[in-house]
Amino acid sequence: MKKLKRSARLVEMTQYLLFRPHTLIPLTTFAERYSSAKSSISEDLAIIKEVFEMEGLGDLQTLAGAAGGVKFIPRVPKAKSLGFIQDICRQLEQPERILPGGYMYMSDLLGRPMVLNEIGKMFATAFSGRDIDVVMTVETKGIPMAYAVATHLNLPVVIVRRDNRVTEGSAVSINYVSGSNKRIQTMSLSRRALKEESRVLIIDDFMRAGGTIHGMMDLLQEFRATVKGVGVFVESDEVEEHLVDEYVSLARLSGVDSKTRQVKVVPGNYFDEEEVGED
Amino acid sequence: MKKLKRSARLVEMTQYLLFRPHTLIPLTTFAERYSSAKSSISEDLAIIKEVFEMEGLGDLQTLAGAAGGVKFIPRVPKAKSLGFIQDICRQLEQPERILPGGYMYMSDLLGRPMVLNEIGKMFATAFSGRDIDVVMTVETKGIPMAYAVATHLNLPVVIVRRDNRVTEGSAVSINYVSGSNKRIQTMSLSRRALKEESRVLIIDDFMRAGGTIHGMMDLLQEFRATVKGVGVFVESDEVEEHLVDEYVSLARLSGVDSKTRQVKVVPGNYFDEEEVGED
Repeated sequence: MKKLKRSARLVEMTQYLLFRPHTLIPLTTFAERYSSAKSSISEDLAIIKEVFEMEGLGDLQTLAGAAGGVKFIPRVPKAKSLGFIQDICRQLEQPERILPGGYMYMSDLLGRPMVLNEIGKMFATAFSGRDIDVVMTVETKGIPMAYAVATHLNLPVVIVRRDNRVTEGSAVSINYVSGSNKRIQTMSLSRRALKEESRVLIIDDFMRAGGTIHGMMDLLQEFRATVKGVGVFVESDEVEEHLVDEYVSLARLSGVDSKTRQVKVVPGNYFDEEEVGED
Repeated sequence: MKKLKRSARLVEMTQYLLFRPHTLIPLTTFAERYSSAKSSISEDLAIIKEVFEMEGLGDLQTLAGAAGGVKFIPRVPKAKSLGFIQDICRQLEQPERILPGGYMYMSDLLGRPMVLNEIGKMFATAFSGRDIDVVMTVETKGIPMAYAVATHLNLPVVIVRRDNRVTEGSAVSINYVSGSNKRIQTMSLSRRALKEESRVLIIDDFMRAGGTIHGMMDLLQEFRATVKGVGVFVESDEVEEHLVDEYVSLARLSGVDSKTRQVKVVPGNYFDEEEVGED
């Protein structure tokens, strides 16, 4: 690449870092890329770091030494996320979202890239220090969200199927009992989709009793994998007890009245003072 | 926001534009945001525009006049995409990917955010001028890809289900015949997921005879919607005739030998000279 002025270099480095979260980039990469001295690159990075912090985009971590470099860690301040979630809660309280059985229509919200991106950043912030190998979800509605989280953590996504499709090769299946309606259901995961002993972050859009997530945990045992975290977009407190103890929720549904279609949605435990769901 | 120096302003504007593709941003937004003169903002934008073009990230379109502003259109040059796709083709040719029935395992590739991001940019480039309202796919494996495309086009995603789940409300269902194995299958779309007369971009991961995509087109007729484009990641030429005439493919599968597990994968019609699939 031809030698760039500082102004052009800043634009170039900003985009380069933003598209490579959680990736260590040696300073020599930038120095060679722009035919610039490492000292100039360090000055550029200091400017970028300041703006990223000011904007609540995340941290630029600098690692010194021979194996050193710079790493962009997306991290959004909780105060900034809270305003966003409060707005989402108000939208979720719209009476026309209440479906038979106390379910809630939210595919419109979860179909918007901007919303998913914000949710992804929140979970990436919540789970950023946990040494995770892979993000896992079960089809269907949690998939875009899991992908958004994985993008900000720079991790692959693994999708658990509700049946065993031919296009996935040999698979491990388990039966599980859905917590709320006590029905026996099946889920399966392709053998080759997940390495043994992986460290897994489970993401799902909705949790009532937690039967589905509990099922994913059982399935993970078959792969000798470790659950490093559970993140749900909306939890319902319409149950006496959750089958899952530790989880991070972004919103909490309570008092669904299917008749009057009234519902209350408040920010989830991610915003609690006591940091519920944190290891 | 406090007054920023040009260097910090460039970092800030770069991230602001990258996260808001296909969105018109009035110059006054930037001028007020940074307490700067519009003339300075215009100079900044000229620098950003040059770097974005040089890097093959896309265009910064400037619209003059009272309703004017600047818009970031992600657009990656075909020459740059071709190298990426050739690498993907080599990976798809690995013999262990061949599954019974001539299917191909590619969930690992389609689970990687970086790969999905590149695929998303290609389809966003292919369909960028088409006046689309929504990106549609059918569960399951096409979902992350549809979401990646939608992110770069700044459009919502709509997911067609293979059954009628309770959490989606009233839905329209159709039966369709899978082109390759002639089985009758069902797909359904929630009534409220898609406005009547929407302009739709269909995205899917794999197309053999095209039965599933043809089914989505039939389903769209029930919503009086218009298909503005069809994009498939991998098409198979193992069929005599496709049920879908116009589509853009990124890779083409031919000569699958289930016995020897040999397969040939080449770049799709998106890279053809004659621009097949273009309106």
